[in-house]
Amino acid sequence: MSAYDVAVIGAGPGGYVAAIRCAQLGLKTVCIDERERDGKGLLGGTCLNVGCIPSKALLESSENFERAKHGFPSQGILIGDLKLDLQAMQERKRKIVDAHTNGIAFLFKKNKVDSILGRARIVSGGQAYQLEISSSATVEAKHVIIATGSSPRKIEGAPFGPRIVDSSGALSFEEAPKRLGIIGAGVIGLELGSVWRRLGSEVTLLESSPEFLPLADGKISKEAMRLFGRDQGWTIKLGVNVLYINEKDDIVNVVYEEKSGRVEQDFDKLIVAAGRAPNTQGIAEDALGLALDDKGFVRIDAQCRTNLPRIYAVGDVAGGAMLAHKASEEGVMAAELIAGRKAEFDRNIVPWVIYTKPEIAWVGKTEQQLKEAGMEYKVGQFPFSANGRAQALGEAKGFAKMLSDAKTDRVLGVHIVGPYASELIGEAVLAMAFSASSEDIALTVHAHPSLSEAIHEAALAVAGRALHI
Amino acid sequence: MSAYDVAVIGAGPGGYVAAIRCAQLGLKTVCIDERERDGKGLLGGTCLNVGCIPSKALLESSENFERAKHGFPSQGILIGDLKLDLQAMQERKRKIVDAHTNGIAFLFKKNKVDSILGRARIVSGGQAYQLEISSSATVEAKHVIIATGSSPRKIEGAPFGPRIVDSSGALSFEEAPKRLGIIGAGVIGLELGSVWRRLGSEVTLLESSPEFLPLADGKISKEAMRLFGRDQGWTIKLGVNVLYINEKDDIVNVVYEEKSGRVEQDFDKLIVAAGRAPNTQGIAEDALGLALDDKGFVRIDAQCRTNLPRIYAVGDVAGGAMLAHKASEEGVMAAELIAGRKAEFDRNIVPWVIYTKPEIAWVGKTEQQLKEAGMEYKVGQFPFSANGRAQALGEAKGFAKMLSDAKTDRVLGVHIVGPYASELIGEAVLAMAFSASSEDIALTVHAHPSLSEAIHEAALAVAGRALHI
Repeated sequence: MSAYDVAVIGAGPGGYVAAIRCAQLGLKTVCIDERERDGKGLLGGTCLNVGCIPSKALLESSENFERAKHGFPSQGILIGDLKLDLQAMQERKRKIVDAHTNGIAFLFKKNKVDSILGRARIVSGGQAYQLEISSSATVEAKHVIIATGSSPRKIEGAPFGPRIVDSSGALSFEEAPKRLGIIGAGVIGLELGSVWRRLGSEVTLLESSPEFLPLADGKISKEAMRLFGRDQGWTIKLGVNVLYINEKDDIVNVVYEEKSGRVEQDFDKLIVAAGRAPNTQGIAEDALGLALDDKGFVRIDAQCRTNLPRIYAVGDVAGGAMLAHKASEEGVMAAELIAGRKAEFDRNIVPWVIYTKPEIAWVGKTEQQLKEAGMEYKVGQFPFSANGRAQALGEAKGFAKMLSDAKTDRVLGVHIVGPYASELIGEAVLAMAFSASSEDIALTVHAHPSLSEAIHEAALAVAGRALHI
Repeated sequence: MSAYDVAVIGAGPGGYVAAIRCAQLGLKTVCIDERERDGKGLLGGTCLNVGCIPSKALLESSENFERAKHGFPSQGILIGDLKLDLQAMQERKRKIVDAHTNGIAFLFKKNKVDSILGRARIVSGGQAYQLEISSSATVEAKHVIIATGSSPRKIEGAPFGPRIVDSSGALSFEEAPKRLGIIGAGVIGLELGSVWRRLGSEVTLLESSPEFLPLADGKISKEAMRLFGRDQGWTIKLGVNVLYINEKDDIVNVVYEEKSGRVEQDFDKLIVAAGRAPNTQGIAEDALGLALDDKGFVRIDAQCRTNLPRIYAVGDVAGGAMLAHKASEEGVMAAELIAGRKAEFDRNIVPWVIYTKPEIAWVGKTEQQLKEAGMEYKVGQFPFSANGRAQALGEAKGFAKMLSDAKTDRVLGVHIVGPYASELIGEAVLAMAFSASSEDIALTVHAHPSLSEAIHEAALAVAGRALHI
C-alpha cells in the first residue's frame, strides 16, 4: 500500500489536470481511472475519448465535406464526384483521440503522476483516506480529489443499443443515418446533429423546453435557430413531450406530443442527449457521509471543498456548468489549495462554446438575466455581414453583441453567433477578468481584416459609435 | 465653393474611417479620393480595392483548393478530378471587393459625409484651407486630414507591365504562372506567394535582407521559414542582390547575386514587393511648407499633427507601420482631436498579422528588441502540436510565445505562428492594453478545446507551469 499526498479519482479534464498540477507543486500524486481498451488505460475522460476532441475532429471533417459540396463551385474549385469515406473520417478521429490519450500518459510520466487503471472507492477516513481500487488493490492518500465526471441520462424504456445511442454512440455511426432523431437541443445534440446533417442525415431535433438554447442570450438563440432551420434544413421542434420510444426491426419509432397534437415518427437512429447525470455511485462508503446536493451532485463550497476534510470535488460531478475548461480550472484550484496556496475561481467569467456552424460562444450575463435582475444596461451589436474577413471566408452570418452596465459601462456579457466565435470569445473573457468597460475595448486596436473587429465594433456600438454599420 | 469643417484626402482605411468619425462628431466633412472605374469613384483605398480584402478572398479560396488537393483524402473526403476555375475565383474576389466599396459609399451617405471623386491638392491656407480637386473644382475646409496612403516602390529599369507586376497586378493573374519570382519577403510577398503557390506556381522569393522577416520575433521567423521551405516547397533566398531584370519574349530574366555567386533565372511572372513609398507628390503647394521627414513621409507628432495648423496626416503617408488598422486608429484620433476631444494612440500595442499558412501575428516587443534594450525578460512557449483543437483542425504546426518582464511579469510581447494567429492576437493586444502580467492570462479561463488555449499555456509556461507540455 503506497501513501500519497493526493489521490485523484478520474482522469478527465478535471482530474488529469488536477493531478498534473498537484505533482508540479511537489505533491506525491496518483490518478485512478477505469476507462480502458484491451486492458490498457485510456486517460482523458469523456472529453478526450468520447466528447470534445472526437466531436471536433468530426465537426471539422464534416464541415469540409459540406464546404466541398456547396461552397467550392462559387470559389472556382471544381471537384469531380464527391464521395464520403466515413471509415477514413472515423479513423482520423481515432488517431487524434489516441494521440491525446497517449499525450496525457506522457504528461503523467513527465510530471511523475502515478496512474492506476481501475474503479476507485473511498473506503475509510481518518488521518489519511483509504481507496479501494476495483476490489483488488488499495492506496492511501492524505487528500482526495473526486473528478468522476458525468454520464448521459437515460430515458426510461429506451435502453442504449445500436439504434438508440448516447453521445458516444453517435460519434461512431458506420454510416450517416437517413433519418436521425435527436432528443435534446443542448450543446451535444446540436454538435452531433451538425456532423450527421452535413454527412447526409435529415435531422429532427426534439426539445422539451419551449425555448431554443435557453441558457444563451435570447437574440443569439433566435438567430441560431433561424440559421439552423432556414439555411441548413434542420427540423427543430420545441416544447415537445416524448411519450414512447419503441425499437422495431431496423427503426426507432418515437411518439411525442407537440402543440398540434400527437405525432408518431420513424428514425433510423435516435440520439438521446437529454442531459448528463453526475457519476457518484459508489465513490465513497456511505459511512463516511459524503454530502450530495438535492440533484445528486457532490456538494462543494466555492473552492471545491466537500463536507469531508481534505476531500475536494471538481468538474461535472460537483455541479455547475458541464464544461471541460471549468473542470480543469477547478482541478487547478483544488491542487493549489492542497499545496497550501491561495486560489479562487470566478465562475461568472467561464466561456460557453457550441461548435456548430456558425459557432456560438458567450461569457457573462445574457440580456434576459440582466432584465430579470432589474439591472440597467446598454447593448452594442455588430453583424458579420459587415466584416471584411467574414466576407472573405464566405462565413458572414451572425453577429457579436456586447452588454455593459448603463452607469459604469463595465462589460456584463459578450455573446457571439458567427465564425470562430470559439476563438473570439477569448478576448471577451480576458476583458471581463479585467472588469473592462466597453470603452476599453472600443479604444483597443483590432487587426484588420479580422473577425475580432466585430467585437471591436460591438463595443463601439454600445456608445452608438460603430464605424462600419 | 462649399465650406467644410474637415476635408479628408484619401478614402482608404485611414481616410474613410476618419471621415465617418468626423461626421459622427458633428463636423461637416468631405472625403476626396481619385480611385475610379468607368468614371465612378471606388472608395476604400488600396486596402479594400487591391490589398487586404481581395488578398484575403484569394487566400481563402486558394487555401480551400490546396486543402481539397492534399488534406481531404485523409479526412475521408473523396473528390475525384480537382480543377481550378480561376476566373470564378477572381469573380468571387471582385464581388467581395465591390460589396465593400459600395458599403463605404453607404456609410458615407448614412453618416452624411460628402464624397468627391478626384485628386485633391491643398493650394492655400489661412483661416481655412483651399483644396483644388483635379484642377476643376475647389473646396474650402477648416481642417485637413491627409490620408493619401502609399504606392508600391518600383525597381529602376523594371517598369510594371503584364509580366512584372506590383501587388495589384499580382492579385489579377489570369492563370497561375508556372515560375513565379517575388522580390521582397515582406507581408505582401508572402501572402501573394502563398496564393499562387497553392494554385500551382513554383515560387522563388528573393530578399535583399540576410534575415527572413526581420521585424518578427527571431524564433517565429525561423519557424515560418522552415514551414514555408520544408513543408510547402518555397525557394527562399536571403541576402540576395538583384542586379538586372530583363523582359524578353514571354519571360522575365532576373540576374542576382547570392552567396554562391551570380545567378540568372527565368520567371513567367515577377512580383515586385520591395516596399511602399508614401503618396506625397502634389498634395500641397510648396509655398505652404508642409514638412516631410527624411524618408519622404509627412512629418507628424504623436497625435498626427503636421507642421501646418489644423492639418493632420494619418496612415501610410505619415510613416510608421503600414497597417490598415493603424491607419484607422490614427484617423479616429485625428477626428476626435479636431472635434476638441482628448485622444491618444499607443503605437506599441498595434498587432501585426501575416495571413500565410500558418498565420503569423504578433504584438509588442520581439526577443531581439528586448535583448538590444538590455531588458531582463521571461519566455513562455507552447506548440500547437499539443493543442487539441489544432489537431482536430489538422493544423497543428507552429507555436505561441509570450515575453514578460523578469521583475514585474508585465507582458512585453506575444508572438504566434499558427492557425488563426490573426484572431488569437486580439486577446494579447487587449492584455497589453491593460498592462497585464503573464500570470493574469494564466489565471484566466480559456475555452476547451480552442486554439486560444495555446496563449493560456504560453502564459503558464512563463512561470514554468504549463500543463500540457
